[in-house]
Amino acid sequence: MTESLSPLTQVPGFRAVGVTCGLKQSGKPDLALVLADRPCAAAALFTTNVFKAAPVLYDMSLMKKSGGKIQAVVINAGNANAVTGEQGLAAAADMARLTESACSLPPDTVFVMSTGVIGQPMPMEKIRRGIYAAGIAIKTEAGQQGHYAAQAIMTTDLVPKEAYVQVSIGDQPVSLGGMAKGSGMIHPDLATMLAVLVTDAVIEPAVLHEALKQAVAVTFNRITVDGDTSTNDTVLLLASGTAELPTIGPDSAEYKTFVQALTELCTDLARAIARDGEGATKLVEITICGAATEAEAESAAKTVATSPLMKTALFGNDPNWGRALAAIGRSGVRVNPERVSLRLGDFQLVKDGEPLNFEAEAVSYWLARSDEIKLMADLGVGPATATVWSCDLSYKYVEINAEYHT
Amino acid sequence: MTESLSPLTQVPGFRAVGVTCGLKQSGKPDLALVLADRPCAAAALFTTNVFKAAPVLYDMSLMKKSGGKIQAVVINAGNANAVTGEQGLAAAADMARLTESACSLPPDTVFVMSTGVIGQPMPMEKIRRGIYAAGIAIKTEAGQQGHYAAQAIMTTDLVPKEAYVQVSIGDQPVSLGGMAKGSGMIHPDLATMLAVLVTDAVIEPAVLHEALKQAVAVTFNRITVDGDTSTNDTVLLLASGTAELPTIGPDSAEYKTFVQALTELCTDLARAIARDGEGATKLVEITICGAATEAEAESAAKTVATSPLMKTALFGNDPNWGRALAAIGRSGVRVNPERVSLRLGDFQLVKDGEPLNFEAEAVSYWLARSDEIKLMADLGVGPATATVWSCDLSYKYVEINAEYHT
Repeated sequence: MTESLSPLTQVPGFRAVGVTCGLKQSGKPDLALVLADRPCAAAALFTTNVFKAAPVLYDMSLMKKSGGKIQAVVINAGNANAVTGEQGLAAAADMARLTESACSLPPDTVFVMSTGVIGQPMPMEKIRRGIYAAGIAIKTEAGQQGHYAAQAIMTTDLVPKEAYVQVSIGDQPVSLGGMAKGSGMIHPDLATMLAVLVTDAVIEPAVLHEALKQAVAVTFNRITVDGDTSTNDTVLLLASGTAELPTIGPDSAEYKTFVQALTELCTDLARAIARDGEGATKLVEITICGAATEAEAESAAKTVATSPLMKTALFGNDPNWGRALAAIGRSGVRVNPERVSLRLGDFQLVKDGEPLNFEAEAVSYWLARSDEIKLMADLGVGPATATVWSCDLSYKYVEINAEYHT
Repeated sequence: MTESLSPLTQVPGFRAVGVTCGLKQSGKPDLALVLADRPCAAAALFTTNVFKAAPVLYDMSLMKKSGGKIQAVVINAGNANAVTGEQGLAAAADMARLTESACSLPPDTVFVMSTGVIGQPMPMEKIRRGIYAAGIAIKTEAGQQGHYAAQAIMTTDLVPKEAYVQVSIGDQPVSLGGMAKGSGMIHPDLATMLAVLVTDAVIEPAVLHEALKQAVAVTFNRITVDGDTSTNDTVLLLASGTAELPTIGPDSAEYKTFVQALTELCTDLARAIARDGEGATKLVEITICGAATEAEAESAAKTVATSPLMKTALFGNDPNWGRALAAIGRSGVRVNPERVSLRLGDFQLVKDGEPLNFEAEAVSYWLARSDEIKLMADLGVGPATATVWSCDLSYKYVEINAEYHT
């Protein structure tokens, strides 16, 4: 493992590359290819949006057909291939066929992801050239280093998102690496959330799927930039099985260790997405405790996290806690108004339902110089807790989503 | 009825006045008083927020105690008297007592509303002076004309919202008048929605309540500026019973006519609130048809109406229909993706699930020169329809809610 490897290619047995095929007007890399040395156990989670993009529909069918064995992933940015009708479904399948051919893989081993504008036909000639170039590049040193893959999947993201975690399972090192993207494009549209995670752990697809569900529930499913769920959201986890350890069985101590490491990896990437939300100046971490159930804690936290009034107040460095309580109050969860408490960072603002006197200027000063804000509220009802990550709402968000046209 | 009467005082038997007591830094009127000649049948609907403001708690108890008979309403802007603990409850009750005294009314005949910043103690000395001044002014010509009442309840509203409707019931004219407020303050906080409606119809409180519920369900409950539900939202309807006609019984033809007129009045005020939403440049009317149920149509329409991506696209005059479909797709309602259709104004953009070719520049030009936008989507599932009113999301919204501090 050397410094020049990306988090994805630090995991033994994986190569990754990003190339330019002309989907982004900027000329930056816009097509990524991830290739494993051998067929991997795969687990994938998809958007719950009714309008699932063509690649999502393709992958859902692929996961059934392939028995959860995948060897490569092709991802383009610049066109979401969503609400594109029959022609879109054909384009997604073509992307898989072209990649199988470029990497000399058998049929039904390639997973497809797209992000970008909705309702536009896929420019297949550009895609074809891109996949061909990626298939050549991935066999070179560039493919071993993998630096451009995370950049190729960016849209209006300002920074690439990559993470790496190593754990010991049965005294053997197991590696987990991943890349993800958040919101934005040059012609911005839906903030597609895509993540590709890889590991050398030895694990069956069904167990891998369970592990991924557990980790995603408390990480990627707990971030929000603007409350809109994309038509393309996809999280894929590939396990190559090259680590020298026995298969990780369900409910074993090794499984718990693996899920913990996977959750750490997903948390890193999820926080990076929230921090780089469209127009964000701050990462906002909202923890709700004292809730009746974890689901209610999550629901209350998400209501605060998506409240435009709360988000604009944080952008304005305004400790306007009334907006947080009002959001909690409309979230539909059980709250005891007489026992509710609220903290912003180290400042306690409300205790047992009564507003406390506090130095508003001191809190405002702290908000202004922090790029990471913790808001904690106790609902005074039960023992459950949940944390959600979000960002503030700035002029830049409006600019990104209003000024550049489809 | 003369040109110089406000919509409220055009209804026989009602006086209204607005005075300045110093709650607004601008020095503009900030305390409104509405007084009926006699006790009125009253119906009221309140916020569903768990953190109900002190005046809301006071009024809920009052409506039980008074048997639905109310003779006056006192309203202040500048302080919401919400999350203010015991002292806030005492302040709301004091406002009622002071008004009863200023208007020589018996106990438990005055309804109280507040709008403004959350968590600040009510400046009762200012309020006391304001109520005293209002009690004098309402006996003069100013009280007969009622022009300042709708201005006194404004916060960051740019225009006062008033409406008047006249119908014939049993060949007799019946009047309905109302005023309402939407979002904003000089120190903006929650966008409280307050409305006071008055009529001279003869109708029992229980029937009046039913009529109000029916009208509000398809008007005030179908507008959204930013998806945040205030701690203070209140709609009050007073019926003086001075019109020369028999009592309007439940389920009668007269009742239907009355509800129709009341719905017209509420629609006027609700649209005015959406059009004057914080930072709005456009009124957006979203109609969902082809839904399985009316509740699903409303839910889909509200999801589109609150989507920041859709709202910023409309601000940017961008016919980005993918954002509308994506919002519908995550709303949880039944949709047939292969039969979905979408129109923006006169432009059909999607038909039976397939995107149509359209002149994006023509649609964008139409959006740019329209201050009222209609978006219609057919879910292709069933017979139900619902319409929701909203506005776009502009830089000004962020400015209003981030730049001015509590």
